[in-house]
Amino acid sequence: MTVVKKLGVLKMKEELKIFYQIFTTTKDAIEKFMNMLDPVIQNATDDHERLYYHHIFEEEEQRLSRLVELIPLISKFENEKEEKDFAPTNNEFNRLLQELNLEKFGLHNFVEHLDLALFRFTDEERSTLLNQLREVSYKDYQQVKAMLIDINKRFDNDYVDPHAHHDHDHDHLDRSVTTSTAAPVTTSAKYKKGFTVGSLI
Amino acid sequence: MTVVKKLGVLKMKEELKIFYQIFTTTKDAIEKFMNMLDPVIQNATDDHERLYYHHIFEEEEQRLSRLVELIPLISKFENEKEEKDFAPTNNEFNRLLQELNLEKFGLHNFVEHLDLALFRFTDEERSTLLNQLREVSYKDYQQVKAMLIDINKRFDNDYVDPHAHHDHDHDHLDRSVTTSTAAPVTTSAKYKKGFTVGSLI
Repeated sequence: MTVVKKLGVLKMKEELKIFYQIFTTTKDAIEKFMNMLDPVIQNATDDHERLYYHHIFEEEEQRLSRLVELIPLISKFENEKEEKDFAPTNNEFNRLLQELNLEKFGLHNFVEHLDLALFRFTDEERSTLLNQLREVSYKDYQQVKAMLIDINKRFDNDYVDPHAHHDHDHDHLDRSVTTSTAAPVTTSAKYKKGFTVGSLI
Repeated sequence: MTVVKKLGVLKMKEELKIFYQIFTTTKDAIEKFMNMLDPVIQNATDDHERLYYHHIFEEEEQRLSRLVELIPLISKFENEKEEKDFAPTNNEFNRLLQELNLEKFGLHNFVEHLDLALFRFTDEERSTLLNQLREVSYKDYQQVKAMLIDINKRFDNDYVDPHAHHDHDHDHLDRSVTTSTAAPVTTSAKYKKGFTVGSLI
């Protein structure tokens, strides 16, 4: 193993440690959010409200199920020592990269679920918790995104991020550029920036 | 190749033909739905409404991007002839199965996005289109679900469906057991049936 390659493995192991931390944190956050939604679904006053919250609940439940598989996979690679384990020729490593790329979007969608909830749950207890979860999740989403850009560049394998075109459009999550309301102030123009259906096909 | 194995490949190729049809159809349906949401986002009267539809738009956009990768992969396997190509030892085949399992949930979530839209877009033109898309998508979701149960059983590999626990909870999509309103009539008890956060961990 050359020094450069050994440094590559060390760097990846540092990144895996951060991924582990982030996805363990978000797993805990999902559970807090689901617990908040649970009584809202049970006490919904009409079918639309019930379906709305139940739908968000289910999407987070799907994400939780994926994380229950992903977190031990991250742990496993944290303990790998051989350079060859971190190569595109190792199919399990490719799977790890694919799952991480998918969960970047899981985190992004979670931030939006929290933003949507902030419009409705304006009491102090819930909005305080939602804002805490939102702050951490947004920061974690940004970090995962930056790390994956770097990792996908370094591991020059045949992996193509099917969502890559999409990332430039996610600035609207940034609340720091908005006035300080509970939910993000955005403009339609911002949301629409750069998107054409045709560009995806 | 034994006769049994040859029949196995033929069966899988028949199934791939159906998957190709279903995911090509739903790709087209996503585009119709996104085109419907586009002016709604542009003309949203407040930030909550804008974020709500933009969020659904983005989730479908993510699904569209995944399908743009998945559909050619299905095609590729439709043209494979060797038994060994359809074995768990072929990592690309494993990836195909994983992606198909993920897109089963994509279809499920799409049905719910359509149901949510049906609550709001009650004019004849949009509700007619939404109901058509809903009918096809629900049927396709059921078929994908049934086919994958069978396929996952046959290809007794190390693939674990992280969402398997979740399927029993999806009967609430079935409108045939409800009164014939535009959106599904459901009960909180039905939505909650069988779910505990603890069971996922």
